[in-house]
Parts: sequence; structure tokens; C-alpha cells
Amino acid sequence: MKVLALLLLLWAATAAATGPQIPKFPGRFARPTFRNNPAASAIGAKYEIRYFRQRLDHFSFAELPDFDQRYIIGPSGGRWAPPSPIFFYCGNEGNIEWFSDNTGFVWEIAPRFSALIIFAEHRYYGTSMPFGSKEKAYKDAESLSYLTTEQALADYATLLIDLKRNLSASDSPVVLFGGSYGGMLAAWMRLKYPHIAIGALASSAPILQFEDIVSPESFYDIVSRDFKRESSNCFDVIKKSWDVIEARGKHSDGLVSLSREFKLCKDLNNTQELSDWLDSAYSYLSMVDYPFASNFLMPLPAYPIKEVCRKIDGFSDAADILDRIFAGASIYYNYTGTVECFDLEDDPHGMSGWDWQACTEMVMPTSRSKESMFPAYSFNYTGYAAQCFQSYGVRPRPTWVTTEFGGHDIGTVLKKFGSNIIFSNGLLDPWSGGGVLQNISHSIVALVTELGAHHIDLRASTEDDPKWLVEVREAEINLIKSWIDEYYQESSYSI
Amino acid sequence: MKVLALLLLLWAATAAATGPQIPKFPGRFARPTFRNNPAASAIGAKYEIRYFRQRLDHFSFAELPDFDQRYIIGPSGGRWAPPSPIFFYCGNEGNIEWFSDNTGFVWEIAPRFSALIIFAEHRYYGTSMPFGSKEKAYKDAESLSYLTTEQALADYATLLIDLKRNLSASDSPVVLFGGSYGGMLAAWMRLKYPHIAIGALASSAPILQFEDIVSPESFYDIVSRDFKRESSNCFDVIKKSWDVIEARGKHSDGLVSLSREFKLCKDLNNTQELSDWLDSAYSYLSMVDYPFASNFLMPLPAYPIKEVCRKIDGFSDAADILDRIFAGASIYYNYTGTVECFDLEDDPHGMSGWDWQACTEMVMPTSRSKESMFPAYSFNYTGYAAQCFQSYGVRPRPTWVTTEFGGHDIGTVLKKFGSNIIFSNGLLDPWSGGGVLQNISHSIVALVTELGAHHIDLRASTEDDPKWLVEVREAEINLIKSWIDEYYQESSYSI
Repeated sequence: MKVLALLLLLWAATAAATGPQIPKFPGRFARPTFRNNPAASAIGAKYEIRYFRQRLDHFSFAELPDFDQRYIIGPSGGRWAPPSPIFFYCGNEGNIEWFSDNTGFVWEIAPRFSALIIFAEHRYYGTSMPFGSKEKAYKDAESLSYLTTEQALADYATLLIDLKRNLSASDSPVVLFGGSYGGMLAAWMRLKYPHIAIGALASSAPILQFEDIVSPESFYDIVSRDFKRESSNCFDVIKKSWDVIEARGKHSDGLVSLSREFKLCKDLNNTQELSDWLDSAYSYLSMVDYPFASNFLMPLPAYPIKEVCRKIDGFSDAADILDRIFAGASIYYNYTGTVECFDLEDDPHGMSGWDWQACTEMVMPTSRSKESMFPAYSFNYTGYAAQCFQSYGVRPRPTWVTTEFGGHDIGTVLKKFGSNIIFSNGLLDPWSGGGVLQNISHSIVALVTELGAHHIDLRASTEDDPKWLVEVREAEINLIKSWIDEYYQESSYSI
Repeated sequence: MKVLALLLLLWAATAAATGPQIPKFPGRFARPTFRNNPAASAIGAKYEIRYFRQRLDHFSFAELPDFDQRYIIGPSGGRWAPPSPIFFYCGNEGNIEWFSDNTGFVWEIAPRFSALIIFAEHRYYGTSMPFGSKEKAYKDAESLSYLTTEQALADYATLLIDLKRNLSASDSPVVLFGGSYGGMLAAWMRLKYPHIAIGALASSAPILQFEDIVSPESFYDIVSRDFKRESSNCFDVIKKSWDVIEARGKHSDGLVSLSREFKLCKDLNNTQELSDWLDSAYSYLSMVDYPFASNFLMPLPAYPIKEVCRKIDGFSDAADILDRIFAGASIYYNYTGTVECFDLEDDPHGMSGWDWQACTEMVMPTSRSKESMFPAYSFNYTGYAAQCFQSYGVRPRPTWVTTEFGGHDIGTVLKKFGSNIIFSNGLLDPWSGGGVLQNISHSIVALVTELGAHHIDLRASTEDDPKWLVEVREAEINLIKSWIDEYYQESSYSI
């Protein structure tokens, strides 16, 4: 079996020397792991797939073709009846079935609330393709131009209004859920459409990772901290390895020998390709450093960073540094031991939706500090924008997200204006650096777990769940319950 | 001097028998009265006109030409310095200078707060024309398709963010103002962009006049009540007049004799044209039934409905009913006594921006009850939509405004989520039927004046202001002051 290492942005690969790749949400991994999760089929049996006809541009009256948005609705067996709640997952950058399968929390708690579950697919992902096909939707900047968060939120609003009308559920409170980019959508939707949803659980949602609100170094600093926490030797070995790789690449036949040593299917064009591949492994390991075995991005053991460092540290002092690195990376890329060679190439249709979003609205500046275990790098917006224009013919609007959704001074804003949002973050998660980590008001609550990784709370429960994870989920359930109770108590109020 | 009776919608004229014209906000009157207001030049001397480059579609990355948005900034002499507040008027459907001239309240109170004043022109009005000219902007449904409220709000948000950056005023609180449609924009902007403005004074903003939230009969019921309040005989005469007009029109030469009797410049094509002209007079009289002489829509005396009814009631019992009606209407259309004949024709470019908005997002159902002084009529959405499609090639989206901004159950929503909005309404104003008339929370406040007309509170103070008007303005000033004080107290808070 070959593992597709779908980690490199096209333009990062072509301009590798200028900076790190953009750390990405894990949307690309939807396909390989979809339905590999043992929990998935049990959940999948309960739901139905439906489609809803959406406008392509909600905010103009330009004549454009409608498209079919896919959504999951369940449980179809259904004890649900209005005005029981609707739990609505704001789909992110991938196949919606994959998010459904990996968001067991919602499926597990819905019965307690007799809630109807909806998982809505984000436009331009999965099968929810404008213009009839992915090929046409992803054809060029013009066809992609309606792939924006505001349009996605308007899709969700329109879908919910229509569903509530058709299900005679106008009195059913809606609670939003989302993880990662989906968590950003859930929080922003609660802000923008408070008349449609009574609250939102935004898990691992880095809504502050824009402009200069938080340090651009936070992502890689946290990855580095996660490794150092397990082993300072492991951290040191990784930190030293980049120069060794670069030096090795300068030898005659250096790229060929590196390619052999790392069991690559095709020879390297430059050392940056290898560094990016390793960078991705470390970054994703931090995101999925769960205390139980999981198969979210890759099949992995519990505490995978600990395992990686155990490998790296387990060599004799005289061992080659790159042997250590390869052994560590193999935990991530080849835990099953079945990979014959590693393919660093992106897939040929590599223009993923998230790349487009990162080159338009989702400009999340990323640097690497000298203290990190990565080569230092300062984010250079001019270069970033130039690469976006070269690759997609589009110019980013780096200040638009904060104009539209806020960000600067979000604390004051939410305190005065918002309510009923849970921002949950695990401090192992490199995205937590852009998260809301402090309570803002009695109903805008930060739940922070020191040992949590990327939206761990949204995963299905396991027997290996540590106590803090059980507790944070209970806290979430209690908060959601309080929103719903309050809604029912107040729903007699009208003007 | 000829008075342009710019009141008839093109399509209402072509399908006159099917229903009443859409009661319109008074944008069309911008030109005739602009700078006729004696207060205007005094205000005008203080301000500067500037322009800001705007995206045409904020919510997509489609390649479209930018346009120049006009705004007024003042006072330019300026004691203002950050972090003193910014007072921002959300321009509505017309020339921004006209709104500035007729919103003396903002100019009068700004010095108390050392506030900078901005009046931003709404896209597709005044000189803020996409595609370089009104002719090109209003060419067809395609060119008009970006004339939407969401785009206008995004214009204001973008302009404010840019202004604050350029003026080093990131700590200056922004307070929004708006009357009528501009009041709807101010309230919606506070809801959608709470991070940009700390509060909004939404005067005479009928945000509930959509779908079935309020009765579609409210507008004409209030007009009728305003007349009955002055004189039940006046009400009765008007109520009877419609049948008389219709019957007279059926006589041989009836249309010609009606045209003579009403001093029309051109003969009537049908009696509906005349009825619509009268309907407009009564509707607008209700809107501007101020206790002082004004020149907002037309030059008018104080308490103009009282004057109209005095004319109508002043005839001998044997007098012809249409003589009474003509005398009454002349108060509205010819108070200065200089009109030689009345021109009922719309201007040849009658495709006004508001007509387009009414045919796309701003679908405000309007019926006339049997109890009103108008011919009974039930709103027929199918016919309305068909006429819109015939006239503009566009299909309305009648549920979009409530999807995007709420409306149903707005009380619950605002109570739980919003803060710092004043909804002021005068009960003489026919638009008050779609207004928020009850306090929603301690900081979402309804200020209702029994004797107020359309956004009377926003007008410059006069020596003839009644006590209740002075008081309501003081209440507004105190609320705005409390928002600003609270903002400064809390602005040390950050996350």
C-alpha cells in the first residue's frame, strides 16, 4: 500500500525556499480515512443523505446556476419531534461523511436531548459542487470565486430556515457544532445569525489567527513544545536535522541517497520537499496527539508523539541523525508497516479548496521562531500574495475576515454582544494559539484542556478517555443543556 | 414651476388596477428639495466630501470593477481627536447630502461628544455609482445585481475600518445613525458588525415589515388613523372619493374633465393614475406630519394633515367632493401656490434604485383594510413577483431579509444577543407599524412618541419643537452617552 502524502501545497512546492508551507486543516485526508474508522459504520447506519438547492451568490442578484448542497440528517429512525432541538454541524473543508464519522460526540449526545442531527456539507467540498462537477467548480478563479465563508454561512442559514419550515420546527432551538475551520464557522454563525441558532460549540477554532491578533509563531512554537514536553533530546534531534538534510543534499548524489534513505518512491528535486514532508508529519502529530489510538488523519497509536520520540531517542548515541528522523516519521506515515515507498507528490489535481481559501480570505500568517524546532522563518505577506496570484490568479484580502467577523478586541465585542458560545481548545493543538482561551462572559466560555489535541472533545468516546476529557464533555453538555432550557423558558417572550 | 410627481412605480402604472403602489421611502425626493432647506447651508459649510474605493462584491472573489463611494466627513475644522467617538450615518436610498442636510440632530449633538461625523452614501445612489455612471449602473438586472443591503453594510464596515486605521482612531467608538431604510441599515449593522460599532440609533426603521411578521395592512391603517384623528369628516370624504373618481372616469370625457379639475399637465389614461397620485399625497403627509413647517419632501406647513383636513372640511355641504379632494391635495403638492399644472408622469428613467430593492430583497407586503380610507386590497405576492420579473427581469427573494437579518421572533433574538440599539418611532408615521415598539432589554430600547412622524427625532431642532420631542432627543443623547461611557470604562478589557 502506498500512502499519499497529500501535504504539500502546489505553490509551496514550487517556491519551496521562500517559507514554510501553510499549516493546513486536515480536509485533504477525508478520502483515505473515510469509513476506515470502526465507529463510523455504526453511526453511518443511522443517517440519510439529502440534498438542498442553493443559490451560488446569496449577496447579489447576479444570474448564476444553483447547486445541490448535500447534508446528512439523522437519526432517521427518529424519536425527534418539534420543538425538540436540532443539532447542526457546520461542515468544513471536506467530505461531510468524514466529519460526521469523526464527530461521534454529536451522535452520542443527541439522544439525551431528543435532538435531530444535521451535518451540512460545505460548498465546493465533497459532492456539494457548483457548476455540476468538481472539475468545473475548480476550473479557475472565476468558478472558485464563490468559495467563501460568508456564502457557506448563508448556505447554512438558508438550509436551516427551509428545514425548520418543512419540518414544522420553527420552535426547535438550533445548536451549532464545529471543529477546526468548522468551529470557526459555528462561532461566526452564532455571531452573524443569532436568530437562527441559540448557541455554538466551537472546538479548536482559531478565530484569532488573522492579521497580527496573535503571534504568527504560535503554531510552530506549540508543535515544538509538544515534542520538547515528551523529550528534550527528541526536540534537539529534530531541530538539528534540518541542517543535516540540507548539507546532505549538497553532496554529489545527495538527493538520491536521501531519497533512498527515506524510502521515497521518486527521487527528491530538492531537500525542501523532504523538509516539508517532515514538517507536515510533526505538525499533524501535534494536532492528533490523542491519548488513544485513532484513525483521524492516519492510523496512529495513542500518544503518537511519545511514540515518535521513543523511536528517535531509542538509537545508540552514534546513530545517524537521519536514521532517527526516518524512524520517527515512519510512526506517522507508516504505523501499519505496510508502506513500500513514500510518495511526496501532491495529487495531480492538487488545487484543493482549502488552498484557495488560504489564498483569498483565510490568510493566517505563520512564522517560525528561533526557539522552535524548525528553521526560523518570518511570514512575508508580499511573497505570499504574489504566490497566490501566480497560482490562482487571485489576490488575497487579508483584512477581510476581521472586517466581516471581528477579531481584534474580540473579547470586548463578544462580552457586550454575544452569548452562548463555547470555545474549546486543547493546549497540545498547535491551532490553540489562535483560539479563545479565556472566559469572556458567563455564557461565552473557554474550556481549555492542558492535554487535549485538535478538537478531541468532538470525537466519539472511548474506554481509554482520560478523566479530563470526560469532564470537559460533561461541561459542554451542561452548557448546551442550559442554553436549551433557557430558550424554552423564554420562548413565550415575544414583542 | 412644475412639480414632478415622482410617485408612481413604473410597473404600478402599467398594472394599475391590480393593487396599490408600494409605499416608498422618500429617496426620490432628494433632488427637488436638496439645498432648499434653510438649515442645510449652515451645516454644509462645515463638511468635506471624500471618496473611498470599494469592492463591488464583498462576498465573492469575482473580478468586478471597484467603484468610488462618496462620503461626507465633518466638521473639518475639527476639535475631534481619537479616541473621541465617530458618529456614522448609514446612508439610504438617495443623495447623501440630502440626508446630511435633513439629519440636523447628528450635527447638533456631535459637538457635545467631540465626535467626528461621517455620512456615507449608499451604493447606487447619489454619485456612488458602480460602473462609472448611473446610466451604466442602472442598465439592467446584471448591472444592478450588486445593489443589496448586505453589500451596502459591507461597504460601511470596510469604510469604517479603513477610516479608523488612517485616522489612527482604532480606539474611537463608533455610533451608528439612520432613519427609515437608513435606520434599518443602522440596526442591522449593529447586529452584523458589533465589532465595528458600539450602538445604533435606528429611527423609524420598519425592520418587521417583512413576510407576515406584522399585518400588511398597518401602513394604510395608520395613514387613515392620522386623518381620522384630525377629522372624521375628512376621513369620510377621502374614503368616499375613490368611487366618485372611478365613476366620473366612466363618463364620456370623464378622464378629460378629471384632468382639468385636477389641473393635470397631461390628460389621464385611467382613473388609477389619479388615485395613485392622491394615495401618495396622503401617505407622504402621514410620514411628514410634523408639528413645524418643513421642507423634507415638499414645502409644507406645520401639522400638514390638519391643514389638508381644514381645506376638505371647509367647503359647504353641497360642495363637490372632488373639489374638496383637490383642495386638500393642493396643500401637499402646491403649498407654495406656484404650480401651474401637475405632472403625474414618472421621470423617463424611472427605474429608481428603491424600486429595484423592493423587487429583490425589500419585499414589504402591503394591503389595505376595509376599515382604511383607501380602496380595500389584499397583497398578492404572485402578482407582485410577476410584475417585478416583467419590469426588471429579476425574481424577488421575499424570505431573504428575514433569513439574513432575522425578524420573526426578533424580540427573543435581540434580548439574548443584542445590545445598544435605540428603535425610535412616532406613531403618526405609517412605517411605525413595522417598527420595534417595545423595550427588548435594558439596552435595546424602544422610544415611542405618540405624536411623532417619520424620523422626526433626526431633524434639526426648531423653536417650535414640542416638549415631547425635546425629551425624546434628550433620552437618545443620554443613551448614546451611556454606551460611550461604558465603552471607555471597559476598553481596558482584552483577551
